[in-house]
Amino acid sequence: MAEVKVGIINVTGYIGMELARLLHRHPSVRLASITGRSAVGKGIGEVFPHLADINLTIEPELGQVDLAFAALPHGESAATVVAMLERGIKVVDISADFRLKDASEYRRWYKATHPALEHLKEAVYGLVELNRGQVAGARLVANPGCYPTGAILALAPVIKEGLIEPEIIVDSKSGVSGAGRALNLTTHYAEANENVYAYALDGHRHLPEMLQELRRLAPEPALSITFLPHLVPMTRGIFTSCYARLSGGEKSREDIVRLYQDFYRGETFVKVAVAPPQTKQTWGSNLCLIYPSVDIGTGTLIVVSCLDNLVKGGAGQAVQNMNLMLGFPEETGLEGLAVYP
Amino acid sequence: MAEVKVGIINVTGYIGMELARLLHRHPSVRLASITGRSAVGKGIGEVFPHLADINLTIEPELGQVDLAFAALPHGESAATVVAMLERGIKVVDISADFRLKDASEYRRWYKATHPALEHLKEAVYGLVELNRGQVAGARLVANPGCYPTGAILALAPVIKEGLIEPEIIVDSKSGVSGAGRALNLTTHYAEANENVYAYALDGHRHLPEMLQELRRLAPEPALSITFLPHLVPMTRGIFTSCYARLSGGEKSREDIVRLYQDFYRGETFVKVAVAPPQTKQTWGSNLCLIYPSVDIGTGTLIVVSCLDNLVKGGAGQAVQNMNLMLGFPEETGLEGLAVYP
Amino acid sequence: MAEVKVGIINVTGYIGMELARLLHRHPSVRLASITGRSAVGKGIGEVFPHLADINLTIEPELGQVDLAFAALPHGESAATVVAMLERGIKVVDISADFRLKDASEYRRWYKATHPALEHLKEAVYGLVELNRGQVAGARLVANPGCYPTGAILALAPVIKEGLIEPEIIVDSKSGVSGAGRALNLTTHYAEANENVYAYALDGHRHLPEMLQELRRLAPEPALSITFLPHLVPMTRGIFTSCYARLSGGEKSREDIVRLYQDFYRGETFVKVAVAPPQTKQTWGSNLCLIYPSVDIGTGTLIVVSCLDNLVKGGAGQAVQNMNLMLGFPEETGLEGLAVYP
Amino acid sequence: MAEVKVGIINVTGYIGMELARLLHRHPSVRLASITGRSAVGKGIGEVFPHLADINLTIEPELGQVDLAFAALPHGESAATVVAMLERGIKVVDISADFRLKDASEYRRWYKATHPALEHLKEAVYGLVELNRGQVAGARLVANPGCYPTGAILALAPVIKEGLIEPEIIVDSKSGVSGAGRALNLTTHYAEANENVYAYALDGHRHLPEMLQELRRLAPEPALSITFLPHLVPMTRGIFTSCYARLSGGEKSREDIVRLYQDFYRGETFVKVAVAPPQTKQTWGSNLCLIYPSVDIGTGTLIVVSCLDNLVKGGAGQAVQNMNLMLGFPEETGLEGLAVYP
Repeated sequence: MAEVKVGIINVTGYIGMELARLLHRHPSVRLASITGRSAVGKGIGEVFPHLADINLTIEPELGQVDLAFAALPHGESAATVVAMLERGIKVVDISADFRLKDASEYRRWYKATHPALEHLKEAVYGLVELNRGQVAGARLVANPGCYPTGAILALAPVIKEGLIEPEIIVDSKSGVSGAGRALNLTTHYAEANENVYAYALDGHRHLPEMLQELRRLAPEPALSITFLPHLVPMTRGIFTSCYARLSGGEKSREDIVRLYQDFYRGETFVKVAVAPPQTKQTWGSNLCLIYPSVDIGTGTLIVVSCLDNLVKGGAGQAVQNMNLMLGFPEETGLEGLAVYP
Repeated sequence: MAEVKVGIINVTGYIGMELARLLHRHPSVRLASITGRSAVGKGIGEVFPHLADINLTIEPELGQVDLAFAALPHGESAATVVAMLERGIKVVDISADFRLKDASEYRRWYKATHPALEHLKEAVYGLVELNRGQVAGARLVANPGCYPTGAILALAPVIKEGLIEPEIIVDSKSGVSGAGRALNLTTHYAEANENVYAYALDGHRHLPEMLQELRRLAPEPALSITFLPHLVPMTRGIFTSCYARLSGGEKSREDIVRLYQDFYRGETFVKVAVAPPQTKQTWGSNLCLIYPSVDIGTGTLIVVSCLDNLVKGGAGQAVQNMNLMLGFPEETGLEGLAVYP
Repeated sequence: MAEVKVGIINVTGYIGMELARLLHRHPSVRLASITGRSAVGKGIGEVFPHLADINLTIEPELGQVDLAFAALPHGESAATVVAMLERGIKVVDISADFRLKDASEYRRWYKATHPALEHLKEAVYGLVELNRGQVAGARLVANPGCYPTGAILALAPVIKEGLIEPEIIVDSKSGVSGAGRALNLTTHYAEANENVYAYALDGHRHLPEMLQELRRLAPEPALSITFLPHLVPMTRGIFTSCYARLSGGEKSREDIVRLYQDFYRGETFVKVAVAPPQTKQTWGSNLCLIYPSVDIGTGTLIVVSCLDNLVKGGAGQAVQNMNLMLGFPEETGLEGLAVYP
Repeated sequence: MAEVKVGIINVTGYIGMELARLLHRHPSVRLASITGRSAVGKGIGEVFPHLADINLTIEPELGQVDLAFAALPHGESAATVVAMLERGIKVVDISADFRLKDASEYRRWYKATHPALEHLKEAVYGLVELNRGQVAGARLVANPGCYPTGAILALAPVIKEGLIEPEIIVDSKSGVSGAGRALNLTTHYAEANENVYAYALDGHRHLPEMLQELRRLAPEPALSITFLPHLVPMTRGIFTSCYARLSGGEKSREDIVRLYQDFYRGETFVKVAVAPPQTKQTWGSNLCLIYPSVDIGTGTLIVVSCLDNLVKGGAGQAVQNMNLMLGFPEETGLEGLAVYP
């Protein structure tokens, strides 16, 4: 069998370097080419000593590969993605450029006209557990945002079954790496350490992703979400707490758990936890742990989820998408257990 | 003027030692006696080197003082508190023993018959901003729990005005010192570091405090709260995010902010923040920062609050209560600004 | 080929669970049996959710395996190790019981008569880079301590060449997981967070290991080491800074670097870094990064080293030893890159 | 008595804002004017919410004050300091511009000609415990660097008495706030968290300060220091470990401790700890804890010291200098105990 080659566009961000870590150990593909917005011409091991085993130079342009991961910022990504598609290269786009199907939503949240409307339709939202079939046949997959991954997976089962009232609260707590590698006072160590706060109180760009995917599942589209992200002092991990009133008669926690177990039965990377989960239990792995619960006193469903924002919320999910797009078993190269403690 | 003497019962917990720090610098009282559940007979500086300037020995029994802080665990506290009252000593009780007015609620949440029913009625819930007058005249004040302090202060203005639907979500993120100084695997460094999770999904003992105090304010008592506490990897700080539907017509953020400013006008320790606040801005101080907001898309009120769980959520609030009980200006000894970064 | 089976005695400590993580993904052995000092009868996934993919129950006694890892505390380990040897099972002992060749040193540092003198002689000190041949032929390997691994690897080249004066300073900074999973006030989160300090100022048990192995290399035995370990607020990682006067004429940093490169040429897990290394560059991997330098002003050699105390300083090194003992390529199952950031 | 007014030049760095915190509560001076390199025209509470109680606007130029703290970067500071002196304003200079008496050393370490040679001679190195008399009479005090404060205080007693060999190792571990508020990849949260490393292996600018002050104390000037600073993942604190051979006959730890106790007897801010100290015990306070020890096996003196780099290593020491320069008791406004945990 001819060797399958893959490349990373912009390896120098946190998702880019995590992709390099995962792909280096992937048994079925060869990481053959990498580019960077900085450090062009340097060996990757010079820039990132932990990747010194990867014998590649950061190039200005991607070499010929079968599939590329585009890890550029939104807005910048689309043009590069299109150029890849035109070269016959499949693409997993890490940016937000192809996630929203409705171009007016893109304009509203990203304050720009969509840069590649003609490809919006073919792009598949790469949340494998919901869109597995489409991903397998896609040549362009939009890798989900880190927050939507945790929130959608937590809510999908009850929304599909129409078990909750349509007003949902999603309260997420993210590690600081989610803010990326670009320097900013809010992610300066002395500012972020020993500190917790909410941000994006006027609305976060990941909200329309959640709405888009959950509305597709819902029997009726009246869904609304209040989403509030928080920064907590750790490097990796997102903990998402979802709240909604149960509708249509009492449900026990056991009923709900059974529903979740059925919904995610057979999934490798989404597990219904038997005890309240912790982000650390997913550290460095592609796992998303989900725990549904019922607040008896108020009839409120509480579903919490944990994941590593750079893996299931980023590079790991991207590799999971790649595996499907290239015909490999979904879990290939993603079998590593979480590193704990 | 005769010198006012105060004492700390069980100085060896985190609230106890924070009380010692604050009282040592208080200009109007003298910390005259301290006891401990451990380390009896040792100088406090031997046990806690940062308190070496305090020249006191940990005693088995409290000496004669005018007011005592009881920093014992719930259940254990009540008997000691009663003994102090009988000696004519005013008491600020840090434990939960006198917080709940309804003894059946105490039984339900603390799994025990209330240990001192006869004193329950006179105890004042020491959230000064709501109960200032009662505190000033009390001889027994129940110092509020750390979570209720942040949640009640965040919600009081809109509940008093009847501006929200009665179903409220309270999602709190606490630093690890809130779990106390007793050893536990969940607060073992390697377990708690780089980790976030929810706990007490079956109900947390601080919920009935929130309900009790907020129902007293509400025009109608139909209030319900779903409360979920989370542990985040930092030592001090609680960030609380409250969510509720606005009722009775549209309100702008400006309307709500004005309401909060009016409600807390003149308060030294509760401030309506002009930008989304951070727990670190309250670190080591008696400040509670509150920031109300409106999610326009869904008509949901979001109010967040920040405080230091060991100060406004513990020892600082206790000193604030003491000041009122002893007739000193409320802010005496609590003027220190937050230590940042 | 018949399958090779391995077991872990006491999987419930940090080294034990890290062994489980590594062995689960090892392509040439099967983790077949695990025991624990606690949690006997439970599935490992119940106790450690991140290990839920491992389908094993914690047993009271180890089943039949070809090689066992004994991850018991010192003193307790020896008897179990001997029992394994008698059952024909090879052993990598994580404890300190077989590290010191001189039983009087054992007595001095561990305050006990050596519990299995008759096996002391055959035990090989499992620092593969120095003792590769002996390890390959051993049936009992004593896995090195975490501090000695970093210090010995940092100093071996110059000591072997006799390039430094015999008085050496070793100043190590360790993450908190090195103190293990047993509860202790010093590793309570609120105590260890935002804190640095030295401990064992009266002498640390890892010192005689350093002396034993380095004296074996030295042309003359007059070597002395002042070793001071420090605790720093992170979970994993040891940074070791070694200081010694260069002897016998001026040496440039280039000369020294060349010596180190020659010494460690061909090693998979010890690398001479091209820039000052950081512990995070080894996080979760079996890598030890070494960086020698010369303080020109004083003629002092400075060599620093980084490793993950639970991998190269523990479970990873144990697997490296196992690989040699069982005839597998040394790096098998240890190829994972560091997880960064 | 006429009110004494003080000002802060560049309040927007970490030392500047810590000065504001301390001076706001100082009973004998009034913080009357502040300037900033950024945020001119804004109220300080807008920029730093934890300082909202301070009712001052950040000005482009300092108003009339009796004493100014110059918290500018080195090189930039000197011209401003001179301008203040010419206006008759006493100055505590936080920068390094006036610390080194030998202008050629300044040139060597700061790669620039000294910008104000004519004032170098009158500047007093503001380590109060060594230079108290000179500080009291000075109009220009150079506030010591954070590392030199911890190292000089740790070594002064034995160097003055000539008790150690002249080759000294100083290994320091600093929290990240020591690197300041300017953005840098090394202080980006995700990079600095869970990480330890040495830096400035080619020499650090704080070394000549240590040598200058310690050589002034030494009976013979042959002193040399190998100084290696390390970054550890915490916000505040410096832990310094000093190593040197004891000379001239055996000394017990008791002998050495007595020497240190005698040397620092009566000092408010330097204490000889009775047990190995921790940086956290000095958090937010002006305390420096020192603990001398002897490694019996090698005859090596080990002295460790702890301080808060922003207080005794910065703003607190600056206020201590100010107190002396203005004739106030040295401890005025610095009585706050460390905030622990």
